[in-house]
Amino acid sequence: MSEEKTRRPGGRSARVREDVHRAVMALVAERGYGNFTVGDVAAAAGVADSSIYRRWGTLEALFSEVSLTWLTTYSPIPDTGSLRGDLHAYAAGVLRDVTGPSGLAVLRLMLALSTAGPSGLEARERFLAARGAQLQAMVDRAAERGEHPPHPLDVVDHILAPLYVRALFGIDGLTPEYIDRLVTCVLQLADT
Amino acid sequence: MSEEKTRRPGGRSARVREDVHRAVMALVAERGYGNFTVGDVAAAAGVADSSIYRRWGTLEALFSEVSLTWLTTYSPIPDTGSLRGDLHAYAAGVLRDVTGPSGLAVLRLMLALSTAGPSGLEARERFLAARGAQLQAMVDRAAERGEHPPHPLDVVDHILAPLYVRALFGIDGLTPEYIDRLVTCVLQLADT
Repeated sequence: MSEEKTRRPGGRSARVREDVHRAVMALVAERGYGNFTVGDVAAAAGVADSSIYRRWGTLEALFSEVSLTWLTTYSPIPDTGSLRGDLHAYAAGVLRDVTGPSGLAVLRLMLALSTAGPSGLEARERFLAARGAQLQAMVDRAAERGEHPPHPLDVVDHILAPLYVRALFGIDGLTPEYIDRLVTCVLQLADT
Repeated sequence: MSEEKTRRPGGRSARVREDVHRAVMALVAERGYGNFTVGDVAAAAGVADSSIYRRWGTLEALFSEVSLTWLTTYSPIPDTGSLRGDLHAYAAGVLRDVTGPSGLAVLRLMLALSTAGPSGLEARERFLAARGAQLQAMVDRAAERGEHPPHPLDVVDHILAPLYVRALFGIDGLTPEYIDRLVTCVLQLADT
Protein backbone atom coordinates (compact mmCIF):
# COMPACT_ATOMS: atom_id res chain seq x y z
CA MET A 1 0.00 0.00 0.00
CA SER A 2 2.85 2.41 0.80
CA GLU A 3 4.14 1.97 -2.75
CA GLU A 4 0.97 3.61 -4.07
CA LYS A 5 1.38 6.66 -1.90
CA THR A 6 2.28 9.96 -3.48
CA ARG A 7 5.66 11.27 -2.37
CA ARG A 8 5.41 14.29 -0.12
CA PRO A 9 8.12 16.74 0.90
CA GLY A 10 9.80 16.64 4.27
CA GLY A 11 11.43 13.23 4.22
CA ARG A 12 10.43 9.98 5.84
CA SER A 13 9.99 11.38 9.34
CA ALA A 14 7.53 14.03 8.18
CA ARG A 15 5.64 11.47 6.10
CA VAL A 16 5.31 9.09 9.06
CA ARG A 17 4.05 11.97 11.20
CA GLU A 18 1.47 12.92 8.58
CA ASP A 19 0.30 9.32 8.13
CA VAL A 20 0.00 8.79 11.87
CA HIS A 21 -1.92 12.06 12.34
CA ARG A 22 -4.30 11.10 9.54
CA ALA A 23 -4.80 7.64 11.05
CA VAL A 24 -5.67 9.15 14.46
CA MET A 25 -8.23 11.52 12.95
CA ALA A 26 -9.85 8.70 11.00
CA LEU A 27 -10.00 6.39 14.02
CA VAL A 28 -11.43 9.09 16.30
CA ALA A 29 -14.09 9.89 13.70
CA GLU A 30 -14.97 6.24 13.07
CA ARG A 31 -14.74 4.67 16.51
CA GLY A 32 -14.45 7.46 19.05
CA TYR A 33 -11.80 7.94 21.69
CA GLY A 34 -11.10 4.97 23.92
CA ASN A 35 -12.15 2.44 21.29
CA PHE A 36 -8.80 1.94 19.58
CA THR A 37 -5.19 1.23 20.55
CA VAL A 38 -1.68 2.25 19.53
CA GLY A 39 -1.67 -0.96 17.47
CA ASP A 40 -4.75 0.22 15.53
CA VAL A 41 -3.11 3.58 14.80
CA ALA A 42 0.09 1.86 13.70
CA ALA A 43 -1.79 -0.53 11.41
CA ALA A 44 -3.84 2.27 9.83
CA ALA A 45 -0.73 4.39 9.31
CA GLY A 46 1.37 1.51 8.01
CA VAL A 47 4.09 1.86 10.65
CA ALA A 48 5.35 -0.31 13.52
CA ASP A 49 3.83 0.03 17.00
CA SER A 50 7.33 0.71 18.33
CA SER A 51 7.70 3.76 16.07
CA ILE A 52 4.69 5.35 17.74
CA TYR A 53 5.77 4.51 21.28
CA ARG A 54 9.30 5.78 20.60
CA ARG A 55 8.18 9.07 19.08
CA TRP A 56 5.12 9.99 21.13
CA GLY A 57 5.29 7.86 24.30
CA THR A 58 1.53 7.75 24.96
CA LEU A 59 -1.67 7.95 22.93
CA GLU A 60 -2.59 11.13 24.85
CA ALA A 61 0.67 12.85 23.84
CA LEU A 62 -0.01 11.87 20.24
CA PHE A 63 -3.61 13.17 20.50
CA SER A 64 -2.34 16.43 21.91
CA GLU A 65 0.02 16.92 18.97
CA VAL A 66 -2.68 15.97 16.45
CA SER A 67 -5.23 18.39 17.86
CA LEU A 68 -2.75 21.28 18.23
CA THR A 69 -1.53 20.77 14.67
CA TRP A 70 -5.10 20.75 13.43
CA LEU A 71 -5.90 23.90 15.39
CA THR A 72 -2.99 25.96 14.12
CA THR A 73 -2.95 24.59 10.57
CA TYR A 74 -6.59 24.31 9.64
CA SER A 75 -8.35 26.57 12.07
CA PRO A 76 -6.36 29.82 12.46
CA ILE A 77 -8.08 33.03 13.59
CA PRO A 78 -8.16 35.59 10.77
CA ASP A 79 -7.11 39.26 10.77
CA THR A 80 -9.73 41.05 8.66
CA GLY A 81 -9.15 44.60 9.91
CA SER A 82 -12.30 44.96 12.03
CA LEU A 83 -13.65 43.30 15.16
CA ARG A 84 -16.96 42.38 13.52
CA GLY A 85 -15.08 40.96 10.54
CA ASP A 86 -12.74 38.93 12.74
CA LEU A 87 -15.60 37.59 14.88
CA HIS A 88 -17.58 36.70 11.79
CA ALA A 89 -14.65 34.90 10.17
CA TYR A 90 -13.91 33.12 13.44
CA ALA A 91 -17.53 32.00 13.81
CA ALA A 92 -17.68 30.85 10.19
CA GLY A 93 -14.46 28.89 10.78
CA VAL A 94 -15.86 27.19 13.88
CA LEU A 95 -19.06 26.40 11.96
CA ARG A 96 -17.02 24.87 9.12
CA ASP A 97 -14.96 22.90 11.64
CA VAL A 98 -17.86 21.44 13.62
CA THR A 99 -19.86 20.53 10.54
CA GLY A 100 -16.88 18.78 8.95
CA PRO A 101 -15.75 15.33 10.05
CA SER A 102 -12.24 16.24 11.20
CA GLY A 103 -13.26 19.28 13.27
CA LEU A 104 -15.96 17.32 15.08
CA ALA A 105 -13.47 14.51 15.67
CA VAL A 106 -11.02 16.97 17.26
CA LEU A 107 -13.80 18.34 19.45
CA ARG A 108 -14.80 14.87 20.60
CA LEU A 109 -11.14 14.13 21.24
CA MET A 110 -10.84 17.19 23.49
CA LEU A 111 -13.93 16.13 25.41
CA ALA A 112 -12.62 12.60 25.79
CA LEU A 113 -9.22 13.81 27.01
CA SER A 114 -11.06 15.40 29.95
CA THR A 115 -11.59 11.93 31.39
CA ALA A 116 -8.23 10.48 30.34
CA GLY A 117 -6.29 11.19 33.53
CA PRO A 118 -3.43 13.69 34.08
CA SER A 119 -1.84 13.31 30.63
CA GLY A 120 -5.26 13.80 29.01
CA LEU A 121 -5.92 16.92 31.08
CA GLU A 122 -2.48 18.25 30.20
CA ALA A 123 -3.18 17.73 26.49
CA ARG A 124 -6.52 19.52 26.88
CA GLU A 125 -4.83 22.43 28.68
CA ARG A 126 -2.31 22.87 25.88
CA PHE A 127 -5.13 22.93 23.32
CA LEU A 128 -7.17 25.49 25.30
CA ALA A 129 -4.11 27.67 25.93
CA ALA A 130 -3.32 27.73 22.19
CA ARG A 131 -6.92 28.64 21.35
CA GLY A 132 -7.05 31.24 24.12
CA ALA A 133 -3.88 32.92 22.80
CA GLN A 134 -5.46 33.17 19.32
CA LEU A 135 -8.60 34.81 20.73
CA GLN A 136 -6.57 37.17 22.92
CA ALA A 137 -4.61 38.30 19.84
CA MET A 138 -7.90 39.06 18.03
CA VAL A 139 -9.17 41.09 20.98
CA ASP A 140 -5.83 42.94 21.34
CA ARG A 141 -5.89 43.94 17.67
CA ALA A 142 -9.39 45.38 18.16
CA ALA A 143 -8.31 47.35 21.25
CA GLU A 144 -5.32 48.77 19.34
CA ARG A 145 -7.70 50.00 16.62
CA GLY A 146 -9.73 51.78 19.30
CA GLU A 147 -12.64 49.32 19.12
CA HIS A 148 -14.38 48.10 22.26
CA PRO A 149 -13.73 44.35 22.23
CA PRO A 150 -15.44 41.66 24.31
CA HIS A 151 -13.55 39.47 26.75
CA PRO A 152 -12.08 36.41 24.98
CA LEU A 153 -14.29 34.21 27.16
CA ASP A 154 -17.39 36.01 25.86
CA VAL A 155 -16.38 34.75 22.43
CA VAL A 156 -16.03 31.24 23.82
CA ASP A 157 -19.37 31.47 25.66
CA HIS A 158 -21.55 32.99 22.94
CA ILE A 159 -19.99 31.96 19.63
CA LEU A 160 -17.95 28.81 20.16
CA ALA A 161 -20.19 27.20 22.81
CA PRO A 162 -23.53 27.46 20.91
CA LEU A 163 -21.92 26.11 17.74
CA TYR A 164 -20.25 23.25 19.61
CA VAL A 165 -23.40 22.31 21.51
CA ARG A 166 -25.63 22.48 18.42
CA ALA A 167 -23.15 20.35 16.47
CA LEU A 168 -22.73 17.82 19.27
CA PHE A 169 -26.46 17.48 19.91
CA GLY A 170 -27.40 17.59 16.23
CA ILE A 171 -29.55 20.75 16.55
CA ASP A 172 -30.34 22.35 13.18
CA GLY A 173 -30.12 25.95 12.10
CA LEU A 174 -26.39 26.45 11.54
CA THR A 175 -27.00 29.09 8.82
CA PRO A 176 -25.13 32.30 7.88
CA GLU A 177 -27.97 34.30 9.54
CA TYR A 178 -27.39 32.34 12.72
CA ILE A 179 -23.69 33.24 12.61
CA ASP A 180 -24.63 36.93 12.23
CA ARG A 181 -26.87 36.66 15.27
CA LEU A 182 -24.12 35.16 17.42
CA VAL A 183 -21.66 37.87 16.38
CA THR A 184 -24.19 40.62 17.13
CA CYS A 185 -24.84 39.07 20.53
CA VAL A 186 -21.12 39.21 21.44
CA LEU A 187 -20.73 42.78 20.18
CA GLN A 188 -23.72 43.82 22.31
CA LEU A 189 -22.16 42.15 25.34
CA ALA A 190 -18.93 44.10 24.76
CA ASP A 191 -20.91 47.36 24.87
CA THR A 192 -22.72 46.61 28.13
CA MET B 1 -24.45 -7.32 49.52
CA SER B 2 -28.15 -7.03 48.73
CA GLU B 3 -28.94 -8.08 52.31
CA GLU B 4 -27.34 -4.89 53.60
CA LYS B 5 -29.49 -2.67 51.44
CA THR B 6 -32.17 -0.51 52.97
CA ARG B 7 -35.67 -1.48 51.89
CA ARG B 8 -37.27 1.05 49.60
CA PRO B 9 -40.90 1.41 48.54
CA GLY B 10 -42.17 0.21 45.18
CA GLY B 11 -41.44 -3.50 45.34
CA ARG B 12 -38.67 -5.56 43.86
CA SER B 13 -39.12 -4.29 40.29
CA ALA B 14 -38.76 -0.65 41.32
CA ARG B 15 -35.74 -1.49 43.47
CA VAL B 16 -34.01 -3.28 40.59
CA ARG B 17 -34.70 -0.30 38.33
CA GLU B 18 -33.24 2.09 40.89
CA ASP B 19 -30.15 -0.07 41.45
CA VAL B 20 -29.56 -0.44 37.73
CA HIS B 21 -29.97 3.31 37.14
CA ARG B 22 -27.52 4.08 39.91
CA ALA B 23 -25.03 1.53 38.51
CA VAL B 24 -25.22 3.14 35.06
CA MET B 25 -24.61 6.64 36.44
CA ALA B 26 -21.62 5.41 38.47
CA LEU B 27 -20.09 3.54 35.52
CA VAL B 28 -20.55 6.48 33.14
CA ALA B 29 -18.92 8.81 35.65
CA GLU B 30 -16.04 6.43 36.39
CA ARG B 31 -15.25 4.92 33.02
CA GLY B 32 -17.14 6.87 30.38
CA TYR B 33 -19.54 5.58 27.79
CA GLY B 34 -18.28 2.70 25.64
CA ASN B 35 -15.96 1.41 28.34
CA PHE B 36 -18.36 -0.93 30.13
CA THR B 37 -20.79 -3.68 29.25
CA VAL B 38 -24.23 -4.94 30.27
CA GLY B 39 -22.33 -7.43 32.43
CA ASP B 40 -20.58 -4.59 34.29
CA VAL B 41 -23.91 -2.85 34.93
CA ALA B 42 -25.46 -6.11 36.14
CA ALA B 43 -22.54 -6.81 38.47
CA ALA B 44 -22.59 -3.29 39.93
CA ALA B 45 -26.36 -3.44 40.43
CA GLY B 46 -26.31 -6.97 41.85
CA VAL B 47 -28.69 -8.41 39.23
CA ALA B 48 -28.36 -11.00 36.46
CA ASP B 49 -27.32 -9.92 32.95
CA SER B 50 -30.51 -11.51 31.63
CA SER B 51 -32.67 -9.22 33.81
CA ILE B 52 -31.18 -6.21 32.06
CA TYR B 53 -31.52 -7.65 28.56
CA ARG B 54 -35.10 -8.73 29.23
CA ARG B 55 -36.20 -5.39 30.63
CA TRP B 56 -34.29 -2.87 28.49
CA GLY B 57 -33.12 -4.80 25.42
CA THR B 58 -30.06 -2.65 24.69
CA LEU B 59 -27.63 -0.51 26.67
CA GLU B 60 -28.78 2.51 24.64
CA ALA B 61 -32.43 1.98 25.63
CA LEU B 62 -31.34 1.73 29.26
CA PHE B 63 -29.23 4.91 28.91
CA SER B 64 -32.19 6.72 27.41
CA GLU B 65 -34.39 5.80 30.37
CA VAL B 66 -31.68 6.75 32.88
CA SER B 67 -31.09 10.17 31.35
CA LEU B 68 -34.79 10.98 30.92
CA THR B 69 -35.51 9.97 34.52
CA TRP B 70 -32.64 12.12 35.68
CA LEU B 71 -33.86 15.07 33.62
CA THR B 72 -37.44 15.02 34.85
CA THR B 73 -36.69 14.05 38.45
CA TYR B 74 -33.59 16.02 39.35
CA SER B 75 -33.51 18.79 36.80
CA PRO B 76 -37.03 20.20 36.32
CA ILE B 77 -37.54 23.76 35.05
CA PRO B 78 -39.03 25.99 37.76
CA ASP B 79 -42.07 28.30 37.65
CA THR B 80 -41.06 31.37 39.65
CA GLY B 81 -43.62 33.83 38.28
CA SER B 82 -41.27 35.91 36.11
CA LEU B 83 -39.15 35.27 33.03
CA ARG B 84 -35.96 36.55 34.66
CA GLY B 85 -36.67 34.43 37.72
CA ASP B 86 -37.33 31.32 35.61
CA LEU B 87 -34.21 31.84 33.50
CA HIS B 88 -32.13 32.43 36.60
CA ALA B 89 -33.44 29.31 38.31
CA TYR B 90 -32.92 27.32 35.12
CA ALA B 91 -29.34 28.55 34.74
CA ALA B 92 -28.60 27.87 38.42
CA GLY B 93 -30.00 24.35 37.94
CA VAL B 94 -27.81 23.70 34.89
CA LEU B 95 -24.80 25.03 36.81
CA ARG B 96 -25.56 22.72 39.72
CA ASP B 97 -26.02 19.81 37.30
CA VAL B 98 -22.80 20.27 35.34
CA THR B 99 -20.68 20.86 38.42
CA GLY B 100 -22.05 17.75 40.13
CA PRO B 101 -20.88 14.26 39.16
CA SER B 102 -24.22 12.86 38.00
CA GLY B 103 -25.20 15.81 35.83
CA LEU B 104 -21.86 15.79 34.06
CA ALA B 105 -22.16 12.04 33.59
CA VAL B 106 -25.59 12.49 31.95
CA LEU B 107 -24.15 15.18 29.67
CA ARG B 108 -21.27 12.93 28.65
CA LEU B 109 -23.76 10.14 28.07
CA MET B 110 -25.79 12.33 25.71
CA LEU B 111 -22.67 13.25 23.77
CA ALA B 112 -21.61 9.63 23.55
CA LEU B 113 -25.06 8.53 22.32
CA SER B 114 -24.49 10.78 19.31
CA THR B 115 -21.98 8.27 17.99
CA ALA B 116 -23.82 5.13 19.13
CA GLY B 117 -25.78 4.43 15.94
CA PRO B 118 -29.55 4.70 15.35
CA SER B 119 -30.63 3.59 18.83
CA GLY B 120 -28.20 6.08 20.37
CA LEU B 121 -29.51 8.90 18.19
CA GLU B 122 -33.08 7.96 19.08
CA ALA B 123 -32.25 8.09 22.78
CA ARG B 124 -30.63 11.50 22.29
CA GLU B 125 -33.67 12.76 20.39
CA ARG B 126 -36.00 11.73 23.22
CA PHE B 127 -33.81 13.54 25.73
CA LEU B 128 -33.66 16.72 23.63
CA ALA B 129 -37.41 16.65 22.98
CA ALA B 130 -38.12 16.36 26.71
CA ARG B 131 -35.78 19.26 27.49
CA GLY B 132 -37.19 21.32 24.61
CA ALA B 133 -40.73 20.85 25.91
CA GLN B 134 -39.68 22.11 29.35
CA LEU B 135 -38.11 25.24 27.85
CA GLN B 136 -41.12 25.85 25.59
CA ALA B 137 -43.40 25.71 28.65
CA MET B 138 -41.23 28.34 30.39
CA VAL B 139 -41.40 30.62 27.36
CA ASP B 140 -45.15 30.10 26.96
CA ARG B 141 -45.75 31.09 30.58
CA ALA B 142 -43.79 34.31 29.99
CA ALA B 143 -45.78 35.13 26.85
CA GLU B 144 -49.06 34.56 28.74
CA ARG B 145 -47.92 37.06 31.38
CA GLY B 146 -47.29 39.61 28.62
CA GLU B 147 -43.51 39.36 28.84
CA HIS B 148 -41.35 39.29 25.73
CA PRO B 149 -39.65 35.89 25.91
CA PRO B 150 -36.63 34.67 23.92
CA HIS B 151 -36.82 31.70 21.58
CA PRO B 152 -36.22 28.44 23.49
CA LEU B 153 -33.10 27.89 21.36
CA ASP B 154 -31.69 31.23 22.56
CA VAL B 155 -31.81 29.75 26.05
CA VAL B 156 -29.98 26.67 24.80
CA ASP B 157 -27.39 28.76 22.92
CA HIS B 158 -26.60 31.38 25.54
CA ILE B 159 -27.29 29.76 28.92
CA LEU B 160 -27.04 26.00 28.53
CA ALA B 161 -24.24 25.94 25.91
CA PRO B 162 -21.74 28.20 27.74
CA LEU B 163 -22.28 26.29 31.00
CA TYR B 164 -21.89 22.92 29.26
CA VAL B 165 -18.77 23.97 27.35
CA ARG B 166 -17.11 25.55 30.40
CA ALA B 167 -17.86 22.43 32.45
CA LEU B 168 -16.67 20.04 29.75
CA PHE B 169 -13.46 21.96 29.09
CA GLY B 170 -12.81 22.76 32.73
CA ILE B 171 -12.96 26.56 32.29
CA ASP B 172 -13.29 28.44 35.58
CA GLY B 173 -15.63 31.25 36.52
CA LEU B 174 -18.94 29.46 37.12
CA THR B 175 -20.04 32.04 39.71
CA PRO B 176 -23.46 33.55 40.57
CA GLU B 177 -22.36 36.78 38.80
CA TYR B 178 -21.63 34.74 35.70
CA ILE B 179 -25.15 33.27 35.83
CA ASP B 180 -26.58 36.80 36.06
CA ARG B 181 -24.59 37.80 33.00
CA LEU B 182 -25.88 34.86 30.94
CA VAL B 183 -29.48 35.62 31.91
CA THR B 184 -29.08 39.30 31.02
CA CYS B 185 -27.60 38.32 27.66
CA VAL B 186 -30.65 36.18 26.80
CA LEU B 187 -33.11 38.87 27.94
CA GLN B 188 -31.29 41.40 25.71
CA LEU B 189 -31.52 39.00 22.78
CA ALA B 190 -35.28 38.69 23.32
CA ASP B 191 -35.61 42.46 23.07
CA THR B 192 -33.65 42.80 19.79
